[in-house]
Amino acid sequence: MTILAYGASAANQPVSRMDITRRAVGPHDVQIEILYCGICHSDLHQVRSEWAGTLYPCVPGHEIVGRVAAIGAHVDAHQPGDLVGVGCIVDSCQHCAECDDGLENYCNGMVGTYNGPTADAPGHTLGGYSQAIVVHERYVLKIIHPEEQLAAVAPLLCAGITTWSPLRHWGAGPGKKVGIVGIGGLGHMGVKLAHAMGAHVVAFTTSETKRADAKALGADEVVVSRNADEMAAHGQSFDFILNTVAAPHDLDAFLQLLKRDGTMTLVGAPATPHPSPNVFNLIMRRRSLAGSMIGGIPETQEMLDFCAAHGITADIEMIRADEIEPAYERMLKGDVKYRFVMDIATIGD
Amino acid sequence: MTILAYGASAANQPVSRMDITRRAVGPHDVQIEILYCGICHSDLHQVRSEWAGTLYPCVPGHEIVGRVAAIGAHVDAHQPGDLVGVGCIVDSCQHCAECDDGLENYCNGMVGTYNGPTADAPGHTLGGYSQAIVVHERYVLKIIHPEEQLAAVAPLLCAGITTWSPLRHWGAGPGKKVGIVGIGGLGHMGVKLAHAMGAHVVAFTTSETKRADAKALGADEVVVSRNADEMAAHGQSFDFILNTVAAPHDLDAFLQLLKRDGTMTLVGAPATPHPSPNVFNLIMRRRSLAGSMIGGIPETQEMLDFCAAHGITADIEMIRADEIEPAYERMLKGDVKYRFVMDIATIGD
Ligand SMILES: [Zn+2]
Ligand SMILES: [Zn+2]
Ligand SMILES: [Zn+2]
Ligand SMILES: [Zn+2]
Repeated sequence: MTILAYGASAANQPVSRMDITRRAVGPHDVQIEILYCGICHSDLHQVRSEWAGTLYPCVPGHEIVGRVAAIGAHVDAHQPGDLVGVGCIVDSCQHCAECDDGLENYCNGMVGTYNGPTADAPGHTLGGYSQAIVVHERYVLKIIHPEEQLAAVAPLLCAGITTWSPLRHWGAGPGKKVGIVGIGGLGHMGVKLAHAMGAHVVAFTTSETKRADAKALGADEVVVSRNADEMAAHGQSFDFILNTVAAPHDLDAFLQLLKRDGTMTLVGAPATPHPSPNVFNLIMRRRSLAGSMIGGIPETQEMLDFCAAHGITADIEMIRADEIEPAYERMLKGDVKYRFVMDIATIGD
Repeated sequence: MTILAYGASAANQPVSRMDITRRAVGPHDVQIEILYCGICHSDLHQVRSEWAGTLYPCVPGHEIVGRVAAIGAHVDAHQPGDLVGVGCIVDSCQHCAECDDGLENYCNGMVGTYNGPTADAPGHTLGGYSQAIVVHERYVLKIIHPEEQLAAVAPLLCAGITTWSPLRHWGAGPGKKVGIVGIGGLGHMGVKLAHAMGAHVVAFTTSETKRADAKALGADEVVVSRNADEMAAHGQSFDFILNTVAAPHDLDAFLQLLKRDGTMTLVGAPATPHPSPNVFNLIMRRRSLAGSMIGGIPETQEMLDFCAAHGITADIEMIRADEIEPAYERMLKGDVKYRFVMDIATIGD
C-alpha cells in the first residue's frame, strides 16, 4: 500500500510530502487510518539528525490516533471502525522480563514508531505523519474518549504516558505532594494527571507569565523557580518531583525540595550534561534521582481509560501538514499551549 | 568529670593528648567507660578541617564501644557493666517524623558524636577518642557479641550501619544481585553484610590485588572495575549497587550495570563533584541514583544483633592512642585491612 506522508529526505531538508509504503496486513496486524498525529520534541530532534543515527527518509510522529481500517485473521481485540491509538512503540521482543511485565518500553528489542529496525521498506520504521500505519495488535491502544476529542487525545500517546508512568510508579495520589518542573507539552499533562490522581500539585516554571496557566491546568500552587525565596519555602517537602525539562539546569535546586526518601525523576535527557548534582543532597535525606522513559502498553491503556473517565485530554493547537516546519520553530521557543497536533486529512491537500 | 582524650587544638595541629570534661549523668543519661574506638575517614576530614566548620578543640571518634559505668535515675534499658556502643549520633529532636520513624540520622536536629551543638563544655560535642562519654539512653546500643570481639565490633557503629541501612532499605537478600563498589572500611562491611543477608555479592575494586581478599570477605564474584570487558559482562544485571567510593569517579560505568528499576546508592560525598552522570542511563531502564547517610538507632541495634547472630565483626588493626596520626596517613593510602581501632586503655600511657 502506497500512501502520503510528511518527512525529510535528509538531515538538511525540510519536512515535506512524500510517498511511503506500508506492509500488507499480517495475521496479528491492525491497519489504521490515521486521523491526527501530535508533534513531539523527539520528532524534531530525530528528523533534523540532532540525535545520532537518524535514517532517511525520516517520517516522524508517535502520537497517533485514528480508526481501524482492517485487521489480520488472528486479531480479536480490535475491530474495523474502532478508534485506536499508537504511541512510541510498534514492536518489542515479546519474551523478555520487561515484555512479560508489560514494560515493553524497557525491552532491549523495543522498536520505536520511527527510526526503528524493521523488515518493512525502507528498512526502518516510519511514523505517524502519514495517512496510515500497520501495527502488531499488541501495540495498538483502544480509545474510549468521545470522537470529537480525538485530536486532543493524540498527545496522550507520548506526552501523556511519559508523565503518567512515573507518576504512577512513584505513587502520586492523595496525601502526596508532587512537583512538576516545566509546563510545556509534557509538563502540562503531568499537572493534569497528578491533579486528577489526587495529589497536591506544585507546578515549577521559569516564567512568571505561566502562573495563571499552570493553575488553570490544575496546579494547587505555582513556584517561579528563579525566585530563591519561593523555592526555599518548599524545602524538604515533596514526596515526588517529575522533571520534564531537558535543557541542562541546576538539579540541586529541586533535589533540596524533596523530603526524606523523596525522588526526582527526569523524563528528558539533555544534549549536554546537567551540572553534576551535589551528592550531599542525595545522602542527607536518602533522596533519589531517577529516570523514566515513556511507559508500557498496559499502563498506556490504563492511562487512556483514566483520562476518558476524568475527561482529560491535552491542550492543543491544530495545524495543517504543510505547517510542520513553522510549528517546530514555535515549539523550540516554547510558543505553544501545549501541543501541536496535525490534521492528517490535510496531507492530501 | 575530667578525662583524657586525643584531639586537635587547631586545624594545623596533630591529634594529641588533652584533658576534656564530660557532663554529670542526667536522669536519661548513660555514662560509658570507653574501651575501643574505631578510626573513620570522617574523623580525619573533621579534625583536619577539610570539611567546613570544624570547632576546636576537636576530639573525633564515632565508633565507640565500652562498658556502662553509671546510669541516670530514669534509665531502664541499660545497666552498669553492660557492653554498649555509641555511633555517629548522640542526640536528635526526638519529635519529628524522622525521629518517630527511628531514622534519627535524617532528623534536622541530629547531633553528631563530635562537632555537634551541645550545652556541654566546650559548646560542641567531643567524640570517642576519650576515656568516657555521657550519652542519652536513646542513642546507646546494646552489644551482645562475646566480649573478646569487642574491639572488632567498634567499626559496626559507623562502617557497619552505613552499609547495613541502604542494603536493608533497598532489599538486599536472597535472589538479589548486589554490587559493592570499593573494598575499604565501608566496603568490606558491605560485602560481609550483603553476603550474610543472602544476596549474590559482586565486589568492585580498582585493584587486582584485592581480588582474593574480596572473595575471602564473602564476595561471590570480584570485578576489577578498570577492566571494561569484565564490567560489560555484568551489564543490566544488578538489582542494587552500594557505592562506597567518595573519590570522584565515573558513575555511568556502574549505572549501566543496573537492571531495570535498579538503584545505585552513594554513601560517600566527593570533595569535588563526580563527572555528571549521563541521564540516558537513568531514563533507559528507570534506574535511580540515590544517597544514604549512616542509619537510625533501631536499625543500628538490628544490625548489631544480626552481626552477633551471624558472627560478623569488622576486620581490624589495633593501634595505640599515640599512633593515630600515622594511622591516618596509612588510611589515606588505603593501607589498612580494613579498619583501625584504637585501644583506649593506651590513652593514659
Ligand atoms: Zn514523544
Ligand atoms: Zn522484550
Ligand atoms: Zn564514620
Ligand atoms: Zn527529629
